[in-house]
Amino acid sequence: MSTFGQYFKVTTYGESHGKSVGCIVDNCPPGLQLSENDIQPQMTRRRPGQSALTTPRDEKDRVEIQSGTEDGITLGSPIALRVMNEDQRPKDYGGGGKNINSFPRPSHADWTYLEKYGVKSSSGGGRSSARETIGRVAAGAIAEKYLKVAHGVEIVAFTSGVGPEHLFPATKSHPTQSANPAFLEMIDTITRDKVDEFLPVRCPDPMVCKNMEELIADYRDKSDSIGGVVTCVIRNCPSGLGEPCFDKLEATLAHAMLSIPATKGFEIGSGFGGCEMAGSVHNDPFIKAPAVPPAELNGRAETAARSRPRLTTKTNNSGGIQGGITNGAHIYFNVAFKPPATIGQAQQTVGYDEEAGVLEAKGRHDPCVIPRAVPIVEAMAALVVMDALLAQSARQSARSLLPVLEMTIPVSESDTKLSNGS
Amino acid sequence: MSTFGQYFKVTTYGESHGKSVGCIVDNCPPGLQLSENDIQPQMTRRRPGQSALTTPRDEKDRVEIQSGTEDGITLGSPIALRVMNEDQRPKDYGGGGKNINSFPRPSHADWTYLEKYGVKSSSGGGRSSARETIGRVAAGAIAEKYLKVAHGVEIVAFTSGVGPEHLFPATKSHPTQSANPAFLEMIDTITRDKVDEFLPVRCPDPMVCKNMEELIADYRDKSDSIGGVVTCVIRNCPSGLGEPCFDKLEATLAHAMLSIPATKGFEIGSGFGGCEMAGSVHNDPFIKAPAVPPAELNGRAETAARSRPRLTTKTNNSGGIQGGITNGAHIYFNVAFKPPATIGQAQQTVGYDEEAGVLEAKGRHDPCVIPRAVPIVEAMAALVVMDALLAQSARQSARSLLPVLEMTIPVSESDTKLSNGS
Amino acid sequence: MSTFGQYFKVTTYGESHGKSVGCIVDNCPPGLQLSENDIQPQMTRRRPGQSALTTPRDEKDRVEIQSGTEDGITLGSPIALRVMNEDQRPKDYGGGGKNINSFPRPSHADWTYLEKYGVKSSSGGGRSSARETIGRVAAGAIAEKYLKVAHGVEIVAFTSGVGPEHLFPATKSHPTQSANPAFLEMIDTITRDKVDEFLPVRCPDPMVCKNMEELIADYRDKSDSIGGVVTCVIRNCPSGLGEPCFDKLEATLAHAMLSIPATKGFEIGSGFGGCEMAGSVHNDPFIKAPAVPPAELNGRAETAARSRPRLTTKTNNSGGIQGGITNGAHIYFNVAFKPPATIGQAQQTVGYDEEAGVLEAKGRHDPCVIPRAVPIVEAMAALVVMDALLAQSARQSARSLLPVLEMTIPVSESDTKLSNGS
Amino acid sequence: MSTFGQYFKVTTYGESHGKSVGCIVDNCPPGLQLSENDIQPQMTRRRPGQSALTTPRDEKDRVEIQSGTEDGITLGSPIALRVMNEDQRPKDYGGGGKNINSFPRPSHADWTYLEKYGVKSSSGGGRSSARETIGRVAAGAIAEKYLKVAHGVEIVAFTSGVGPEHLFPATKSHPTQSANPAFLEMIDTITRDKVDEFLPVRCPDPMVCKNMEELIADYRDKSDSIGGVVTCVIRNCPSGLGEPCFDKLEATLAHAMLSIPATKGFEIGSGFGGCEMAGSVHNDPFIKAPAVPPAELNGRAETAARSRPRLTTKTNNSGGIQGGITNGAHIYFNVAFKPPATIGQAQQTVGYDEEAGVLEAKGRHDPCVIPRAVPIVEAMAALVVMDALLAQSARQSARSLLPVLEMTIPVSESDTKLSNGS
Repeated sequence: MSTFGQYFKVTTYGESHGKSVGCIVDNCPPGLQLSENDIQPQMTRRRPGQSALTTPRDEKDRVEIQSGTEDGITLGSPIALRVMNEDQRPKDYGGGGKNINSFPRPSHADWTYLEKYGVKSSSGGGRSSARETIGRVAAGAIAEKYLKVAHGVEIVAFTSGVGPEHLFPATKSHPTQSANPAFLEMIDTITRDKVDEFLPVRCPDPMVCKNMEELIADYRDKSDSIGGVVTCVIRNCPSGLGEPCFDKLEATLAHAMLSIPATKGFEIGSGFGGCEMAGSVHNDPFIKAPAVPPAELNGRAETAARSRPRLTTKTNNSGGIQGGITNGAHIYFNVAFKPPATIGQAQQTVGYDEEAGVLEAKGRHDPCVIPRAVPIVEAMAALVVMDALLAQSARQSARSLLPVLEMTIPVSESDTKLSNGS
Repeated sequence: MSTFGQYFKVTTYGESHGKSVGCIVDNCPPGLQLSENDIQPQMTRRRPGQSALTTPRDEKDRVEIQSGTEDGITLGSPIALRVMNEDQRPKDYGGGGKNINSFPRPSHADWTYLEKYGVKSSSGGGRSSARETIGRVAAGAIAEKYLKVAHGVEIVAFTSGVGPEHLFPATKSHPTQSANPAFLEMIDTITRDKVDEFLPVRCPDPMVCKNMEELIADYRDKSDSIGGVVTCVIRNCPSGLGEPCFDKLEATLAHAMLSIPATKGFEIGSGFGGCEMAGSVHNDPFIKAPAVPPAELNGRAETAARSRPRLTTKTNNSGGIQGGITNGAHIYFNVAFKPPATIGQAQQTVGYDEEAGVLEAKGRHDPCVIPRAVPIVEAMAALVVMDALLAQSARQSARSLLPVLEMTIPVSESDTKLSNGS
Repeated sequence: MSTFGQYFKVTTYGESHGKSVGCIVDNCPPGLQLSENDIQPQMTRRRPGQSALTTPRDEKDRVEIQSGTEDGITLGSPIALRVMNEDQRPKDYGGGGKNINSFPRPSHADWTYLEKYGVKSSSGGGRSSARETIGRVAAGAIAEKYLKVAHGVEIVAFTSGVGPEHLFPATKSHPTQSANPAFLEMIDTITRDKVDEFLPVRCPDPMVCKNMEELIADYRDKSDSIGGVVTCVIRNCPSGLGEPCFDKLEATLAHAMLSIPATKGFEIGSGFGGCEMAGSVHNDPFIKAPAVPPAELNGRAETAARSRPRLTTKTNNSGGIQGGITNGAHIYFNVAFKPPATIGQAQQTVGYDEEAGVLEAKGRHDPCVIPRAVPIVEAMAALVVMDALLAQSARQSARSLLPVLEMTIPVSESDTKLSNGS
Repeated sequence: MSTFGQYFKVTTYGESHGKSVGCIVDNCPPGLQLSENDIQPQMTRRRPGQSALTTPRDEKDRVEIQSGTEDGITLGSPIALRVMNEDQRPKDYGGGGKNINSFPRPSHADWTYLEKYGVKSSSGGGRSSARETIGRVAAGAIAEKYLKVAHGVEIVAFTSGVGPEHLFPATKSHPTQSANPAFLEMIDTITRDKVDEFLPVRCPDPMVCKNMEELIADYRDKSDSIGGVVTCVIRNCPSGLGEPCFDKLEATLAHAMLSIPATKGFEIGSGFGGCEMAGSVHNDPFIKAPAVPPAELNGRAETAARSRPRLTTKTNNSGGIQGGITNGAHIYFNVAFKPPATIGQAQQTVGYDEEAGVLEAKGRHDPCVIPRAVPIVEAMAALVVMDALLAQSARQSARSLLPVLEMTIPVSESDTKLSNGS
């Protein structure tokens, strides 16, 4: 389906050869200041052509708000966003002989789209194109704006792996990221500005970033491609978000991330490495939460501070989520991306006519999608948190009108809408 | 939310201290033979007490159909399933001093449930209990029955990792499962009967299984716990399933798997290891699909054979899904489970009153959930495939009534409802 | 589908020949006091056998809570409700010759269920049986409990028409209910207790009720049946409910009402009669809202009073809804029910074998469903309001954290969660 | 919410003062020929300025397809449609004194939008504007195209009442439309072309149409407005559509119709009048269905004819739906529209400041929306049928792969996808 979210609903449209791509964002809170300027920066971070390492196509990707705002204020009605397609003809494959019209491209979606829809379009894989992600990033920017203004939520993703090069490789003493103090320190403070200091790779460590850059350049020069890993942290997320049992927050995050083109895996908190830890070590004991510095208690944050949870966890192998519900600690996760299927090398394969042959791509292609995937991961994370927030807001709001009973605690003391764990 | 699926909708209910647990399955195809006997086997595989390695609580877990069938035939109306709770009091924690009523259990959901719902229940984490999964397994068994009868789909999961012990560890020559011939051979043929020959661990290799069993026993003896990995294969899945762009099949699988209690990660096909492969190696070239042996062409399978896709892939790093859509090849994936949070050891933590203290659990606890997780993973996989199948069936059926055009192929030639890739 | 609502989700199951009927209520606010005693009264008002005028089958219809509560408090988890079927065999039709197995009953759902599901069940129309409504009434009672406790919402339905006998027939001076002072006075004060003083018909006027009773008796004696109209009023409904543009409150009410078996029409406010009024007369001018008497300002109501809308309407042709959104005035609507299709008379019709014949029903049948429909209408109204309330609560709660701008008004002044228009 | 439908999902956006209005249609069957030319005619029938009787604003309302098609063929991906707003400033109210900025317009949505969203926009009622319906009509045209091509479905609406003037007034001998042979004859044959011969009123009877025209002109001259009734018939609708128990076809039709601005009522088949009929008269006996003339058996229709239901009903008080499921007979229903709230007369009311005053509208206004509502009703009817069709297609397709049992009938004999009752 083309809709994501149950409360904050985003419906996207568009493939690369149509007039435009975009989305409709339904159920955005009214009264939020919002203009194209809030959305464009992430669009620009996402777009190709940012460096020699990414695809050189020049797309402008200017977003236009069609509806849902007046004088720069959201009305509560659907916000339609639109980005024109400038170059609508798919022509990177071709040539005199066998080409994309004859061959389903290996590990692309040409074949499966034909199986599914029964239509042989010129673009092959239809909405499996990276251009589909424009609507996600645009919608995500709106969610992020709200989350930032209302809750101070910060979502930052960065490149943590390219091929065999890792920012925090597993070691004997630190078998998982969650056990690595350097990792924990980084997610405590990393910002998008910091990440963008490491363009084009977006890996916030000078040495590792340089290695990755060389590795990507190497694959580019071989007309080959390489995958990698994006890590994302969500800070200041209110506690109490996530809708068990099927819409646990890690489940909807996993859904969101695996819906991004070219993803192959997702892990939260200790992840796959956590399987190898003893429960006695993996468990996150509770500790009394530190007090919030008065300097941060301005305006609404004051209310937030008063109602903040009194406990937090000493370690964070859980990745900020327990039983599918946020506990106020940092949420962090990894997303695996495969090497791009479009490569410059000739490939032995079989055509639609069942005859073997060689497929050759023309032009230059993106040897590694990881740097551009960073804002997409952030956008999808924002959509997940925003949706969970509205679900929990409805519950808290409804609960706040009930008399307090022996078994229940008043909303004022546990107001998860407002509380952050750090 | 408590509902999974958009076409084949499963709504579950129940926590361990209520009268019963169960589910309602809406939109099951009418005319399917179905009785409790189709459902009970997976319930039994899931239930605790199967061996000394799993929790010794004796639960009967007999499922009863409440509605939706007559004379053992599904009517097309909602099928309600119910399993009585026999032992409704949570009392494993307690004792003279501080206990579960005073302490939120570390890495359990006690704290987050209180943050979210504001109710302090005797069971602490409410629906985060493993008992919640009964409804999933029951519903999954119905989906499996349909998938088996109508499409010959086979879904088999098994234990592939316990702590540091792996069935197919990454090696230099086989950096990923997807590159390991032994793995590919196993998923070609593995059956549930075979898996259950390796009880209680359910790892289908005598040596590795024995190591895992000893490892678990060791953790049990230390009153500790250990995590692991479940691998699952889906065979004979029709091509064309999965609903881009947000409900790609890997996305809904990831959602389903991360909604299972205690999961920390999901990877499909080449997974995280695939990030380290070159695109030129990772890409799965197409080959002409082998003919189906006449012996298998009985009844409906004949139709299936005639309309089967003419191509398949030479390698399967994609894990049977390209662009979010099944291509007819085996779908396989891994799910990471953390070590159970309930351990017999005393734990230093902080209570609801913000005072530090020691929490001790009483009784015996499951040191490793992996063996029991096997049928749960199978059930969730079945729900995902079933839902995607109905979505695609609606499309194919609607498309079949349109005139064939130059750009389109008739449904009879690409009937994804019926076709399997191998 | 078997699920109603997007926020307060009710999934029902069961047909008359299964073990039980019931429902799962998902997303009920946690911390609400709830026991079977809150649900049973409406179950009892709904059940057959209340008088000689309704069907004489004796069903006990005791509801049992399966999950979602502890010590009489809702946990926020799904609440499963179950009512046993005691008499599971459909045998009212039959006899030596042609019977229900040979004939699809005229204006029943036997034929269409067979067309749709392809299964010929003994009960014919499956879930079109009145017994299906048990789950609705049970779920509705939970919604009502919350609405009453948190917002003081009152929902009262009554019989306003049986055959040609009307409680408020259109007259020259009062072409619509909305223009009839006697009607407006009645909906201002009518209670369920008052309605039940007029059992078995539930038309709260001695004379009209008597006429209706005689009319029904007359149809009963002729082995015939007759339809009628149920009118429902919702008082104290918060303003701001309803989700344009597709889920306007009148749209979801219409959906809810037309989903009740045997309904043929719905009209809100001035209804069909309003089509004949001039806009200058039909428009509801605004007036300053009267102050709330201090006596009613106890506890939370005080907050409600402070934040109540300052305007209301002088007339109420709108029926409490403008632009699809509640304005705080009484919501009232009519629902038309056809005469029951099951009649004692022999009917000329055609069988499944295409042969003409005569179908005769055995036993006694309900000649008029209107009195029993009253609690069903109330239940569906409660589900609609509850769902809209949670949707708006999420919005208001989200909006309350944004800075107030020139174009926006603070939530404290327009807190639609709390405000009532009269 | 801004999304309608669960299978054929339409999400609309836009208010009159934004850049554009439009929609995204998700899940349209792939392989359908579709261009703007298929959509524009209904847009044009909907737009204002068609005659002196309707509003004189000149809007072009040209629709542009943004995505989802290539070379005039649907791809199966979301189809985005867009119509530019040319005149974006709301200025019809105003003047020197009190105006729309000071007064919530009586029976408009200005007040309730402010209550709900807390934003005071220049347009007042936001999406309650008639311009919102553009997205519906555009999406409906796509559904209609498919329904026509694949099933020969015909949907025709017409004006049946304006104020007290009715096309088929209830009489002693014909208390309901369903009992009136002239009505039944009309719905058998009426076409859109025929309806448009009676522009501007769209009431297909010369005499009644003339009376209505004069009536509307009279209200226009008095600066007043008047309501009316639109009747709609759906012919050749496959049997088996509608999803009990909550999404019965009449329930989703009622939902759809009451979501149209200014609607106050809905009745299907015998409707409110049916309440007054005896069950013995109201019941629709079955008869053997007439054979389809060979001339109509071209192409797919042949298959349809072979598998058509063998029964139909002698009378049609049910309006083509029994137990919430279509039986293949004509579906027909009435929709009540109130008089437009915008009138030229001065109105005594109260302002946002609680002060009484007089509101005067400037300019010319539509005295009666009925003629323009005709294509909107058709569009919503098409969306309902299309959604139900995909739901049933999924079921039939899934069922077709199961072995035929004693209780079940094969899909080939009851293929509801293809069958029509007349």
